[in-house]
Amino acid sequence: MPAASPDPHRRSEQSRRAILAATVELVGDLGYEQVSIEAIARQAGVGKQTIYRWWPSKGAVTLDALDESLDAVVDFPDTGDIVADLRTQMLGVSRLLTTRVGRVYQGLVAAAQSDPRLSRAHLDRVIEPAVLACRRRLATGVERGELRADIDLQGLIDLLYGVIYYRLLLHTRPLDDDQIDAVLEIAFSGARPGRPR
Amino acid sequence: MPAASPDPHRRSEQSRRAILAATVELVGDLGYEQVSIEAIARQAGVGKQTIYRWWPSKGAVTLDALDESLDAVVDFPDTGDIVADLRTQMLGVSRLLTTRVGRVYQGLVAAAQSDPRLSRAHLDRVIEPAVLACRRRLATGVERGELRADIDLQGLIDLLYGVIYYRLLLHTRPLDDDQIDAVLEIAFSGARPGRPR
Repeated sequence: MPAASPDPHRRSEQSRRAILAATVELVGDLGYEQVSIEAIARQAGVGKQTIYRWWPSKGAVTLDALDESLDAVVDFPDTGDIVADLRTQMLGVSRLLTTRVGRVYQGLVAAAQSDPRLSRAHLDRVIEPAVLACRRRLATGVERGELRADIDLQGLIDLLYGVIYYRLLLHTRPLDDDQIDAVLEIAFSGARPGRPR
Repeated sequence: MPAASPDPHRRSEQSRRAILAATVELVGDLGYEQVSIEAIARQAGVGKQTIYRWWPSKGAVTLDALDESLDAVVDFPDTGDIVADLRTQMLGVSRLLTTRVGRVYQGLVAAAQSDPRLSRAHLDRVIEPAVLACRRRLATGVERGELRADIDLQGLIDLLYGVIYYRLLLHTRPLDDDQIDAVLEIAFSGARPGRPR
């Protein structure tokens, strides 16, 4: 492979990937507040104007970097076992958020509290597609009789993912696998006694 | 009552209350990023140095304002019905967060993402006492046989309150009473079919 491709599309794609990787690296190591577009450009080996050509702001490039990082873990398998499949996906998300990506996400949510456009873009790009995918997988579980037909799917989704964001954003304790097992156990079996096992 | 009390303790307390009320009003209306200590002092009718005498930073005074606002709603009743009592407390918290206090809390959590001391103070002052109170009320429910004895209390607490922070901080949709009913229904009855009602 040549060191510099003569194909401008490929070169653009290389720059784009370098910028997103530099964003995860710098924001993940230093924190969102501490990182400038200039520093991202320097780390990525591109000019600042290259970043501004594609992204209007640090929030926008950070959102893209987060979105691409999450792409690897957001899909739901369908093995026919709804709890196992939710567990696979939720462990993937939770473990990813114990890496630099977690700090990137903390910075993005912090910035979104005072930036309604960034908040809206985060919902449109990250949350709503993930919620839709989860809702589809849960609906299949309802069809197969693995969940009761009257379950509030939106309520169940809020409950399952709420615990991940609770630890990520309030820093009560580190995200871990046990938390995912605990939420699935309670959400599926319920807290009342006398439940048939 | 005299317009200005000659008692210095009472005057201090009046100033303290005015400062916390001004913080909720300004941060709740304008957002945390937009508000300065100077603006809070002006709104409260005190000198800037009065605020700095009691609080080291905007984050610290905002945390106190939040903590005092939450004081009115964090206690758990004990009527002997664990679901009803959780519902009372959670609705109180959720409804309070639909007022200016919600925006104050969003600002505080945003600031805490890049301020570990503020994050630690938030846990110490707000989250941990609330979690302890909830754990005690849940433990009473376990003793009385309203919850199964092997329930993961920490997991249940994460799950119940996670949904409130999920909507507050991700802005997926406004906090509402239905969400509290949905999480309690799922958490106690479980998502699996065939549960005896």
